Amino acid sequence: MLNEYDCWMQKVKIKTNYEIPNIVYSDAKSLVAKQAEKEYCLGIERLLGFSPKIVKKHNNIKNIVLLNSSYASSVKDEFTIKVTENQIHITGSGENGLLYGVFRFLSLLALGKIKNGLELTESPVSPLRMINHWDNFDGSIERGYAGRSIFYKDGDFDYDKTRIEDYARLLASVGINRVSINNVNVRANAKLLIIEEYLKEAKELAAIFRKFGIKLFFSINFGAPWSLGKLPTADPLDPAVAEWWKKRAALIYKYIPDLAGFLVKADSEGEPGPFQYNRTHTDGANILAKALEPFGGEVIWRCFVYNCTQDWRDTKTDRARAAFDHFMPLDGKFDKNVILQIKFGPYDFQVREPVAPLFGALKNTRHVMELQITQEYTGHQIDLCYLPYIWEDIMNFDTIHGENSKIKELLGKKNIEGFAAVVNVGLDNNWTGHTLAQANLYGYGRIAWNPAITAKEIAEEWSVLSFTNPEVPQKVQEILLRSYPAYEKYNAPFGVCFMVSPSNHYGPGIEGYEFSRWGTYHRADKDAIGIDRTPSGTGYTAQYSPKNAAMYADANTCPENIILFFHRLRYDFIMKNGETLLQNIYNIHFEGYDEVLSMIEDWKSLKPLLENQVYESVLARFERQLVNAREWKDQINTYFYRKTGITDNKGRQIYS
Amino acid sequence: MLNEYDCWMQKVKIKTNYEIPNIVYSDAKSLVAKQAEKEYCLGIERLLGFSPKIVKKHNNIKNIVLLNSSYASSVKDEFTIKVTENQIHITGSGENGLLYGVFRFLSLLALGKIKNGLELTESPVSPLRMINHWDNFDGSIERGYAGRSIFYKDGDFDYDKTRIEDYARLLASVGINRVSINNVNVRANAKLLIIEEYLKEAKELAAIFRKFGIKLFFSINFGAPWSLGKLPTADPLDPAVAEWWKKRAALIYKYIPDLAGFLVKADSEGEPGPFQYNRTHTDGANILAKALEPFGGEVIWRCFVYNCTQDWRDTKTDRARAAFDHFMPLDGKFDKNVILQIKFGPYDFQVREPVAPLFGALKNTRHVMELQITQEYTGHQIDLCYLPYIWEDIMNFDTIHGENSKIKELLGKKNIEGFAAVVNVGLDNNWTGHTLAQANLYGYGRIAWNPAITAKEIAEEWSVLSFTNPEVPQKVQEILLRSYPAYEKYNAPFGVCFMVSPSNHYGPGIEGYEFSRWGTYHRADKDAIGIDRTPSGTGYTAQYSPKNAAMYADANTCPENIILFFHRLRYDFIMKNGETLLQNIYNIHFEGYDEVLSMIEDWKSLKPLLENQVYESVLARFERQLVNAREWKDQINTYFYRKTGITDNKGRQIYS
Repeated sequence: MLNEYDCWMQKVKIKTNYEIPNIVYSDAKSLVAKQAEKEYCLGIERLLGFSPKIVKKHNNIKNIVLLNSSYASSVKDEFTIKVTENQIHITGSGENGLLYGVFRFLSLLALGKIKNGLELTESPVSPLRMINHWDNFDGSIERGYAGRSIFYKDGDFDYDKTRIEDYARLLASVGINRVSINNVNVRANAKLLIIEEYLKEAKELAAIFRKFGIKLFFSINFGAPWSLGKLPTADPLDPAVAEWWKKRAALIYKYIPDLAGFLVKADSEGEPGPFQYNRTHTDGANILAKALEPFGGEVIWRCFVYNCTQDWRDTKTDRARAAFDHFMPLDGKFDKNVILQIKFGPYDFQVREPVAPLFGALKNTRHVMELQITQEYTGHQIDLCYLPYIWEDIMNFDTIHGENSKIKELLGKKNIEGFAAVVNVGLDNNWTGHTLAQANLYGYGRIAWNPAITAKEIAEEWSVLSFTNPEVPQKVQEILLRSYPAYEKYNAPFGVCFMVSPSNHYGPGIEGYEFSRWGTYHRADKDAIGIDRTPSGTGYTAQYSPKNAAMYADANTCPENIILFFHRLRYDFIMKNGETLLQNIYNIHFEGYDEVLSMIEDWKSLKPLLENQVYESVLARFERQLVNAREWKDQINTYFYRKTGITDNKGRQIYS
Repeated sequence: MLNEYDCWMQKVKIKTNYEIPNIVYSDAKSLVAKQAEKEYCLGIERLLGFSPKIVKKHNNIKNIVLLNSSYASSVKDEFTIKVTENQIHITGSGENGLLYGVFRFLSLLALGKIKNGLELTESPVSPLRMINHWDNFDGSIERGYAGRSIFYKDGDFDYDKTRIEDYARLLASVGINRVSINNVNVRANAKLLIIEEYLKEAKELAAIFRKFGIKLFFSINFGAPWSLGKLPTADPLDPAVAEWWKKRAALIYKYIPDLAGFLVKADSEGEPGPFQYNRTHTDGANILAKALEPFGGEVIWRCFVYNCTQDWRDTKTDRARAAFDHFMPLDGKFDKNVILQIKFGPYDFQVREPVAPLFGALKNTRHVMELQITQEYTGHQIDLCYLPYIWEDIMNFDTIHGENSKIKELLGKKNIEGFAAVVNVGLDNNWTGHTLAQANLYGYGRIAWNPAITAKEIAEEWSVLSFTNPEVPQKVQEILLRSYPAYEKYNAPFGVCFMVSPSNHYGPGIEGYEFSRWGTYHRADKDAIGIDRTPSGTGYTAQYSPKNAAMYADANTCPENIILFFHRLRYDFIMKNGETLLQNIYNIHFEGYDEVLSMIEDWKSLKPLLENQVYESVLARFERQLVNAREWKDQINTYFYRKTGITDNKGRQIYS
């Protein structure tokens, strides 16, 4: 990795057996197609060290690269790569398809896979492949761990155009086609994004992304007609409010005619929404949808709606039920240009959650799955945590709603239109704080493009593209693939969730949520831990298809990695390995910590093969991770030892 | 209480049987004596509704008030009040004595105690009666619960001169004679307080306080020679550093010739100090003392020094030991103008702590006791918590170092020179947020003046002075006196300390400190709770005089209200009432909550007798207190129930 800033697009001369023609013909006329042509040339310069020659006509030229953006296909964003003895054809079913084809070609070239006879046709499984920014206008980033915002500073747009273009390139190179540019908690100056003064600036930003086939979303504040428009209300059924949104949409689209639409967090964790006017989510979403519809805009409406002022004494309310209870009854009632954004699990990006029961159940409502690339609960980009590992598990989850009902099979069909995810980038030179966390951004794009790709395949691609010394990638892949299980082991055990420090979501805070208003309790006592979510408890399991409901409701068939999400178990519950739950808690925490030690040793073995800056910066993070893993191990083990008085059966040290 | 702003100096016409002469003769020539004369006239106008006539000569005037500020006495700040049939003599052993005499006279007048034949001589027991402000230059106040700073805003001095004069009057009326004007954590612009630009402004502030006999202290940053002076070091033994401080002192005293001195938090919770140069506290304090000595200034050096990066696994280190371990070996090694400021207990203003063992033990070092008026751990001026209740306990603590060794007996002798305390005022109209918290400010002054005064006496004085409707004071006194025991009952039990929310020190956070770096652990497990601080444990008890050490070390003689500070006890430990520790924990929490309910009922009964604003604002706080008390009760009881599985023997509700 010559330069961390370049991520998986390193400026390094590769060797290839196939000689790439140095003449290029392109039919590019449109903006993105022209960018594709430019990206091709930049990529060849980067990887092979020469500048292709662009020709106006290609008759009679034998050795040539042909870029074509207008072949007939009903498949959106499709591309074909065809390599013959003398020619390379990169063809898109439209300008975006060509751009993706060029990037895939460059990637294959860097991976050493371009050879005579190669023929490849690909298209994205998911039409919507979105990045969410939780950047605030003051330059801070909610849950950001890689420096300040790349977009904003001191209450206004303030960015390096070159850097934004580099960012758009990185995103487009893995197929991202939508970016929401501001925090879903729309506060302070972010509320002004939709006034002319700021729209003028947003227009400039949109122009950079547009070249790369990326359209912008704005996060908007549902209370805007009241707070910004000075109307007496933001009631979605008030005609003046509807009119206000229509006029505002017209103004916005005057500046950005291809704006993708609005992203809305409403009635969630204190944000305004239709509930405060006794209206429904459909009322709220549809009024915005109607305002955007004339311009082709869409409304993405987040389903992260739950009672965030729960009384911990209340054992009837179950936050896990909330999204399904709120939105399932509304299935089919949203306008056509409304898309629901549903977090992958019922809680909030915990290390291990079941897949949310809305997936597969929603039949008549467009929706996307929300993942989280920024490592809010997964180590703050201090701890290494390779997220495609868990995403693969999610993709393989079978909702058992009809046939072919795995998440990866439902995607692009049955109304699941793709993904949104909070990104992990900031102004740090390496974009992601932890250099190896670049793999998460890369992996997100790859999975959004094709949910059937495996975590291992992604790790192979990414490590080869990023670490050009051929001795490095194999070990890096192994470290990546071990990192998630390691993190999971030293974290809250067996899907019990929320034992994290409430103040910043890093490090243990085992009882941090026990008496809070957030609805996330484990209720550990001297005998048992966990929430009974079976029909004898909160009944959450019944939100799943019958087979999954039955599987989760029985502690003997419920997957053990998630068993404490569904069941309240005694510490002497015997798990599949014949040991008690308590002993298993001890085991995984010792193992998780040891895994970190072992990953560090593996990383150290790479020292002679790595650029010093990369080696040292990752090592420094590993050392902080070790401190964190030790705290998790010791605090969790001590916590349960204090509760039970039972020691580890292998005699390992637990503090008292 | 006609106006909350006026506190215990209400503008109300009282009735008096004794007719106060309306002619006044004063010998005032000095600044403070003239202010005393002015205060006398203001007070008479406030209480009796007429303006006394000032005469230049008093020969042959039969009915007259005589103010005299120069009677001969070796006792500093002494005053005499003498009431004859026709004359009133208020006489001070100096200008400050006269001012205190005038204020005492006015107070007695309002209390209905001025009558023919009254003769009274008083002087303060403690020479140093200090208020600490933890105000920051940005206008925030560390641990402030009554609005923004009265001194600063946006990084600079910014105050209402009238308000500051009113504040100085309130302080002087209860005998306060020193005020430190900025946070002991000296950061941001507060570091600049000692440059000329800011000194010019501080000079103005000093002038206001000076009229009321109050001298200022500056909190300074020990690293100033380095951070401000750009020297390569702040090492106290570096001659250039000593020289820098001398020059700086000369500059400061050019602007404020009567500055009382510096208040210093060094090597404490991350603040710079001599340790970082491998120097001692004596090195650090004495270098400052030598700089101030030519100007009559003093250095107050805080003893709040402990390891704030403790590993919770480390059971050998005991934070309670720290102040004694650090400072006892230095006894006698400080310069004459150094005064140590020692928190009353070994931790940090917890609801119940033992009195710190340095008191009575230090023989050759000047020191003051630090109390806390602002309710950091005692309810944030949301919960009513009448602090003189606990201060009386502290004053009555017998150190058993020789005879007459109670704190109140040592004060003013044996080097205990008085008190410092973080104040509870801000820009709120009523100064203290909770109107009844004015009693804590009043009470602090009274105890600093005379540590033998009781909490009941203070409550009687304050309530009569503040609530002019004669039916109100009795009930207010009762509520005040019940409030501390109530708060203590629903808080961390039996002196175990630090079960408070770490984020803001309000409300329960039972395991909030268990795995943190602060050195304050209770280590509750399924069988027992508390830290063994006897010789079989950390040995902290041995820091006390032998009799106290023995008393604390034995669970049968240790006072129960502090027993979990000194002992690790099983939940089935039988307490004096014959019930187990666990049952007693349950009992006090139910009782404490019930007390709040009862205090609220009592307050409501006063509704017809109170000004609506006062009634409602206090009631609103009581309602918030009830929520807090309920959380404490339920969380503590649930916590121990989960740990033990043992229910309340009276069948009261504990949540699981």
